[in-house]
Amino acid sequence: MMIEVVNLTKKFSLVTEHWDPKIIAQLNDYHLKIAKIEGEFVWHSHPETDEMFLVMDGELTIHLRDKLLHLKQGELCVIPKGVEHKPSAVGECQILMVEPAGTLNTGDAGGEMTIEKIDWI
Amino acid sequence: MMIEVVNLTKKFSLVTEHWDPKIIAQLNDYHLKIAKIEGEFVWHSHPETDEMFLVMDGELTIHLRDKLLHLKQGELCVIPKGVEHKPSAVGECQILMVEPAGTLNTGDAGGEMTIEKIDWI
Repeated sequence: MMIEVVNLTKKFSLVTEHWDPKIIAQLNDYHLKIAKIEGEFVWHSHPETDEMFLVMDGELTIHLRDKLLHLKQGELCVIPKGVEHKPSAVGECQILMVEPAGTLNTGDAGGEMTIEKIDWI
Repeated sequence: MMIEVVNLTKKFSLVTEHWDPKIIAQLNDYHLKIAKIEGEFVWHSHPETDEMFLVMDGELTIHLRDKLLHLKQGELCVIPKGVEHKPSAVGECQILMVEPAGTLNTGDAGGEMTIEKIDWI
């Protein structure tokens, strides 16, 4: 059985686009994904699942309807299912996400930033 | 609704014992756990679940029956369910784990290193 060691720095170096999540590992029916982000995403929620964000580099702001969450490198948060949120980053930010396989990046919002099929990297 | 930003450095600073995992976040029915480890753990497997290890500081060796996995800071691996493994670390190592809530640290092996009830920190 092939069990791979995944180096996050190497994986992030392969990501060329912002807001283009890539799968780096599978845990049961969950995917670990990485993304480079910069600028503003769209407001959305995931009606069926919580979503974890861990900042590996840079700074992430998650807009909630009633406040802002500011996350630096080494900080994480879990956005509960159904809670509207909008990730944003002033400079480039590298994030690790954990969520069920098949979770859409734009959740219930859809739109042009939706990645219908997230690839492995 | 309370959504908390979790700082991993702060959480690790609260961990005083080796091989004593603590829960830092919940994602659906999964727990994110941290642990400080040093020395050798016991051979075990988790018949019902995969298990993810991400090294936040130090170096982790995971013994498999047919090879060794060496993980440095920023490296992760997923041990598939049912695969026997034995984590070890020469110096202190800080790890982040993702696995279903209720997963026993010693899996099917039991023994004195088992933590029956893992607390939040």
